[in-house]
Amino acid sequence: MNIKIAENAGFCYGVMRAIKMADDAIKKYKKLYSLGPIIHNPQVVEEYEKKGLKVAQDLNDVDAPVLIRSHGVPPEVYNEINKKGVDYIDATCPFVKEAQDYAKEMFLKGYTIVIFGDKNHPEVKAHLGYTDYNAYIVNTPEEAKNVVAEKIGVISQTTQSVERFASVVAELSKNSKQLKVYNTICDATEKRQKSAKKLAKESDIMIVIGGKNSANTRKLYEICSKYCKKAYHIETEDEIQKEWFLDVDNVGITAGASTPSYIIDRVYNFIKGMDSE
Amino acid sequence: MNIKIAENAGFCYGVMRAIKMADDAIKKYKKLYSLGPIIHNPQVVEEYEKKGLKVAQDLNDVDAPVLIRSHGVPPEVYNEINKKGVDYIDATCPFVKEAQDYAKEMFLKGYTIVIFGDKNHPEVKAHLGYTDYNAYIVNTPEEAKNVVAEKIGVISQTTQSVERFASVVAELSKNSKQLKVYNTICDATEKRQKSAKKLAKESDIMIVIGGKNSANTRKLYEICSKYCKKAYHIETEDEIQKEWFLDVDNVGITAGASTPSYIIDRVYNFIKGMDSE
Repeated sequence: MNIKIAENAGFCYGVMRAIKMADDAIKKYKKLYSLGPIIHNPQVVEEYEKKGLKVAQDLNDVDAPVLIRSHGVPPEVYNEINKKGVDYIDATCPFVKEAQDYAKEMFLKGYTIVIFGDKNHPEVKAHLGYTDYNAYIVNTPEEAKNVVAEKIGVISQTTQSVERFASVVAELSKNSKQLKVYNTICDATEKRQKSAKKLAKESDIMIVIGGKNSANTRKLYEICSKYCKKAYHIETEDEIQKEWFLDVDNVGITAGASTPSYIIDRVYNFIKGMDSE
Repeated sequence: MNIKIAENAGFCYGVMRAIKMADDAIKKYKKLYSLGPIIHNPQVVEEYEKKGLKVAQDLNDVDAPVLIRSHGVPPEVYNEINKKGVDYIDATCPFVKEAQDYAKEMFLKGYTIVIFGDKNHPEVKAHLGYTDYNAYIVNTPEEAKNVVAEKIGVISQTTQSVERFASVVAELSKNSKQLKVYNTICDATEKRQKSAKKLAKESDIMIVIGGKNSANTRKLYEICSKYCKKAYHIETEDEIQKEWFLDVDNVGITAGASTPSYIIDRVYNFIKGMDSE
């Protein structure tokens, strides 16, 4: 049985970097806090709690160094941390940071700022801070119709869909004289999906790893189901059943954005072990 | 019988200004040339020929002051005129001039320039010169897909449709990291159409004046046909027939972009005269 892991499976660059920075910080500080869970994966968060990375909802709870997760934070949070006199480790994804810089730059130049994204997402909440809480948060072309201004500046939440972004930009171009658009969408999701599709086409079955409630994992599962005989969505190797592999020559594995590589490795090894029994 | 002329009928601001500048220049110079016909209306061009404004296709034909029409010219034409040692009157529409300035500014800043418009239109040909003949001319979203660049800068031909412009901008936002858009579409056409529709609703019949081959006049005729009992498309008052006005209380008049006000006035007076017979 051939077992292959899809390219771009699991963590994106920004999350991988944040986890690496957390590992290094734990070695250095023994105890530290992340502002909000470091990733949307309860198993990983729990594991890091044990290692010494506590989750703080608020800076009030903090009495040790602070890790800023990949989503970033509004600018005033840096000041508040400094006031508390604790160290911080800034694991803001560089692509998110770039979007923050663009928002700030355009805001200071007098543009009316539009943030394309989900108003409840921590990344978007942080972006808003870089416009002094003076931006429109827009998620649909209909919402974009409400924004009318001489000069409009646009950034995007990094994980949004390019097609919807384009339809929002189209609306904004009608109601402004000057429109400046920074396409800050990261292509990690798209690449992950493309690689999964490619591997599914070469495989009999696909194992898709990730939270059952993770939207991006379910999307991966959908794609894989289309391009191979059967796809299975699991959270850990415990769910794997031997009968899935009857008469199967080629197994593909992929994983959602919040799945760390060690979970992917465990699944891989479990299937490999089963095969050699 | 009530006779009303629609608001925004006939010439737009830029054309009206160019005609006024031509009138003044004729008084001053007696003889001068326009580079290409001053407007797309043969009757008007012929009338101005008689007054002393000759049409030159080329600077080679020129031995007297030159009028630059509302569409504008590429930058090198100014140098060529200066070399010939003749005066010039620059009747480039200020809105067109603005678009030229934006194209130049973005080109010098290293943007890949997209001109949204018709590649055969003199305005677009002139715009191209402000990018050193280094721009993409795009007229559809499909064509926009071919433009992929880090930094894209967009301007529009002033008389294009906003909806199509927006769909082109949408495509460009997908294939660039930075997109700067100057919406240089002039709203004269849209305003003219809206005013014609408004008047048509209050009228029994509409008289639409303009060249039979004028796209914008035919569009006006179409709109008027929808909103009153009957619309008539004429070039001059000679085509008007008495029976159109039987049992008619309210007559509306509108005119395409190349129709001078004196032709509108003649039509108005003709109908008024007919009514008092």
